[in-house]
Amino acid sequence: MKQMEDKILAEGKVLSDQVLKVDSFLNHQIDPQLMKAIGMEFAERFKDAGITKILTIESSGIAPAVMAGLELNVPVVFARKRKSLTLVDDLLTAKVHSFTKNETNEISVSKKFINADDTVLMIDDFLANGQAVNGLMDIIEQAGATLAGVGIVIEKGFQQGGELLREKGIRIESLAIIESLENGEVKLKKEVPTK
Amino acid sequence: MKQMEDKILAEGKVLSDQVLKVDSFLNHQIDPQLMKAIGMEFAERFKDAGITKILTIESSGIAPAVMAGLELNVPVVFARKRKSLTLVDDLLTAKVHSFTKNETNEISVSKKFINADDTVLMIDDFLANGQAVNGLMDIIEQAGATLAGVGIVIEKGFQQGGELLREKGIRIESLAIIESLENGEVKLKKEVPTK
Repeated sequence: MKQMEDKILAEGKVLSDQVLKVDSFLNHQIDPQLMKAIGMEFAERFKDAGITKILTIESSGIAPAVMAGLELNVPVVFARKRKSLTLVDDLLTAKVHSFTKNETNEISVSKKFINADDTVLMIDDFLANGQAVNGLMDIIEQAGATLAGVGIVIEKGFQQGGELLREKGIRIESLAIIESLENGEVKLKKEVPTK
Repeated sequence: MKQMEDKILAEGKVLSDQVLKVDSFLNHQIDPQLMKAIGMEFAERFKDAGITKILTIESSGIAPAVMAGLELNVPVVFARKRKSLTLVDDLLTAKVHSFTKNETNEISVSKKFINADDTVLMIDDFLANGQAVNGLMDIIEQAGATLAGVGIVIEKGFQQGGELLREKGIRIESLAIIESLENGEVKLKKEVPTK
């Protein structure tokens, strides 16, 4: 998605060979117009997949997921990273390790909001090692729901998450794929048109 | 806002005299169409306030804030509840106690994203004791920015936050005000037209 790639090249900050900071439009400050464009792009790519629900994870997945939900006209559920006292229902849970933050969170989704009839589009801001996607897949499986595919705003193509998931036959649609962050420079993978 | 009030009456669950659960459309599952309507309503109410930035707090404030930002065509910044390793810049911080979760979090906003030129619309999902609003006001003050007002999706009118803030002269626009949750029943305050 050219608009996304342009934004990364204009505003992304390379903190190390592993870490790209995009807090001016996605992870801390959010560009609502860009989120709308992202939501429309995900909706276009998954419009024929029979999506009934979008699943994401707090916090940075929420904005792109809600915009996609608006376009596809389906509810969005965000997995929580900690249990809240007002979430008293039966929960589906999974463990997710964040290498960036160097911590393991339990993520949880109320059983009420995902069930065996659902065809789920998963959306997240980053795909690196695939920890978050694996945790959400675990939850989708526990619910007996069907995973239609995964929409990722920025994939770190030099980490193994995307490759491992694609090898399992999971449909991954990444709007931008970073090939390398070496020498303080963002190198994007050339976009392969999906159709 | 009638659509909001109808949704609360249809789907809100009273857990106690103090706690209303709205996790089917706002706090866990999100209704994107309702979020869009909420964003449009906040934008309408604050369209003449010269807003340059929207400030909210993760996670449940993000969806309504981004929709309002889309309508007002301004960036949204969400305060984080914990420091992230990729937020290395100078931070503005404040302490916020959550009575619902019975914990105190440090919230933080990067200095880069709020400054003295900004006129800020604050948006949050709930207003109860006003802890989150006070924390965000503290951050706005540290930045030297101007607070135009506060947009709240659901105000607990039987708690003191709204009253104390209005007494200070702060403009609070709540889309629904709960008068009481006694006897397991949601009683809404009759809407007073703003204009």
